[in-house]
Amino acid sequence: MAMIALSRRLRRTPFSDGVEAAGVKGYTVYNHMLLPTVFRSVEEDYRHLKAAVQVWDVACERQVEIRGPDAARLVQMLTPRDLRAMQPGQCYYVPIVDETGGMLNDPVAVKLAEDRWWISIADSDLLYWVKGLANGYRLDVLVDEPDVSPLAVQGPRSEDLMAAVFGDAVRDIRFFRFRMLEFQGRKLAVARSGYSKQGGFEIYVEGGDIGMPLWNALMEAGRSMDVHAGCPNLIERIESGLLSYGNDMTDENTPHECGLGRFCNTESAIGCVGRDALLRVAKEGPVLQIRPIEIHGDRVPPCDRLWPVMAGNAHVGNVSSAVWSPDFDTNVAIGMVRMTHWEAGTDLDVITPDGIMSATVREVFWN
Amino acid sequence: MAMIALSRRLRRTPFSDGVEAAGVKGYTVYNHMLLPTVFRSVEEDYRHLKAAVQVWDVACERQVEIRGPDAARLVQMLTPRDLRAMQPGQCYYVPIVDETGGMLNDPVAVKLAEDRWWISIADSDLLYWVKGLANGYRLDVLVDEPDVSPLAVQGPRSEDLMAAVFGDAVRDIRFFRFRMLEFQGRKLAVARSGYSKQGGFEIYVEGGDIGMPLWNALMEAGRSMDVHAGCPNLIERIESGLLSYGNDMTDENTPHECGLGRFCNTESAIGCVGRDALLRVAKEGPVLQIRPIEIHGDRVPPCDRLWPVMAGNAHVGNVSSAVWSPDFDTNVAIGMVRMTHWEAGTDLDVITPDGIMSATVREVFWN
Repeated sequence: MAMIALSRRLRRTPFSDGVEAAGVKGYTVYNHMLLPTVFRSVEEDYRHLKAAVQVWDVACERQVEIRGPDAARLVQMLTPRDLRAMQPGQCYYVPIVDETGGMLNDPVAVKLAEDRWWISIADSDLLYWVKGLANGYRLDVLVDEPDVSPLAVQGPRSEDLMAAVFGDAVRDIRFFRFRMLEFQGRKLAVARSGYSKQGGFEIYVEGGDIGMPLWNALMEAGRSMDVHAGCPNLIERIESGLLSYGNDMTDENTPHECGLGRFCNTESAIGCVGRDALLRVAKEGPVLQIRPIEIHGDRVPPCDRLWPVMAGNAHVGNVSSAVWSPDFDTNVAIGMVRMTHWEAGTDLDVITPDGIMSATVREVFWN
Repeated sequence: MAMIALSRRLRRTPFSDGVEAAGVKGYTVYNHMLLPTVFRSVEEDYRHLKAAVQVWDVACERQVEIRGPDAARLVQMLTPRDLRAMQPGQCYYVPIVDETGGMLNDPVAVKLAEDRWWISIADSDLLYWVKGLANGYRLDVLVDEPDVSPLAVQGPRSEDLMAAVFGDAVRDIRFFRFRMLEFQGRKLAVARSGYSKQGGFEIYVEGGDIGMPLWNALMEAGRSMDVHAGCPNLIERIESGLLSYGNDMTDENTPHECGLGRFCNTESAIGCVGRDALLRVAKEGPVLQIRPIEIHGDRVPPCDRLWPVMAGNAHVGNVSSAVWSPDFDTNVAIGMVRMTHWEAGTDLDVITPDGIMSATVREVFWN
């Protein structure tokens, strides 16, 4: 395996000092920023995430801030999800599409006020698309990347840890809602959300200067709860069916292919630039779709490229993420499969670097 | 040092098999794609680059293809460089700015025809900005990322190696011009350009399937020339004053701060979306500018963040790239310095992780 060559271009985060002190062993790059991938081992991190509580440096979920009189109009232009009922204090998972209906990002939109939004982005420079549209349509908005760095607290004991630092008010925060809570005199948006299915919160840390004080406060308060530095875990996120933009989908895919049709209200999302392109697929459905796939046999090698999914000699899809799951004692995978072969129970072959492995399409993900 | 965690999201290139076979030891990520950073050692790669010839996988210089009746108009919207005199067959280095004059990218524009251009990009999703503008202004263009992966041949012996594979026609290609030359029945754009000052070419490999055949042909033909797999070299590029977007400049900087004023024709670049914002700085000049900086004393540590540049207690700039240069027996660095302290010969202090080191502003870069 190769080392990562550090440079300013791979931006550090307000929590990097804490991440290094905790002994980070692997990184990926996400939105031009360092994202830890492993601390002890991927399997040890996984077991701990499911049993205790972890603090995650997910500062790489950069924000695109949109403010001004046309803010709500611009956010609706980005997504086929109808945002009219959304209230300040809510978070919405919003597929973002271009004029052809291709996915450009799959962020969480955070509505701070009618005229002020954060888009908490996956790995692509969504800022450029939003700025381009704002300029071209002469919208009355300001668009930029503020000094806001999400820190996630994930795992079954996360509510207790958060309550120890932010008070019992965190217990009342509902899923995909946020409240402004105080830390060292600063009001921070605290949402019940995060990139695992083990429960938890994301703190939108506004102002890099309080990054390490907050990191340290969580580590200190969590000592008795076996808190540990962690990161999005490959095994847990595949078991949970949490998609990764760039891995499981790209701009070649519509939201419907990604299984995100339930987040699209294509008929009513008036103003979405990709609406017209999506109307047909919204009505008829996609011919290719994300599916959970179980790969039988030995542990799969690291999945760093698409693995063809075959039905005999016919290429009917691709696996995009795969890993051995200790809890389910099998290889768990995410892939796209053609309609002809996506029924649960369908047996297929996957061409991996270690050879052809048999696989079965599942009805639902594991977690 | 940490490992890089591989995944489909960090895209492989048509040359990755060759890169791995050559024993790549380090990677960075650039445009969501793997970019090698070291093969033998950074210093050994450096000496070899200056003495022989290397083949570089720079597929990460992705292309934004713009074609259609409004193509030339759209490209001019992107940059304050006046493109009216540019002919098909030419390459222009073009600062790309947003509506505030902030740098979004510093690519090479390749004019294939009046109505067909490639923008060979640095590390940001320029595609999103271009698509946003095209949509907002309702331009008659198609914008996408084609299957084109640059492969660079760099070093003093690069012309001989290129001639061995593409024929003597390569010898007639002038700097920043390209010709369509044949390889295995395919016409490829071959330009005299590249991210070193050791001379060389970039081949725009259209069609990933001929990536490895071309890699292998170059390696085979170069055996007697001591050809080796290489990559953009940190030492050589700093000595040569080759800027790196994201390292030495960001969207906070104007082209003039980056020392790129000579590539701006702000008065005549009618249509550039950042023109109005740049008129004043174009006339009066910036107050902060890129400078070559020599850092005295021991070898600097790896530069993975901005290092403050001080004049006494005054913060007058930042170093953004720095490394020990064996040939010049000193630390070579790139930084931005305020007007009050940017004169060549000015002595300053640099705050590095290893302590305060004395430094001197230079008149010109080393190569």
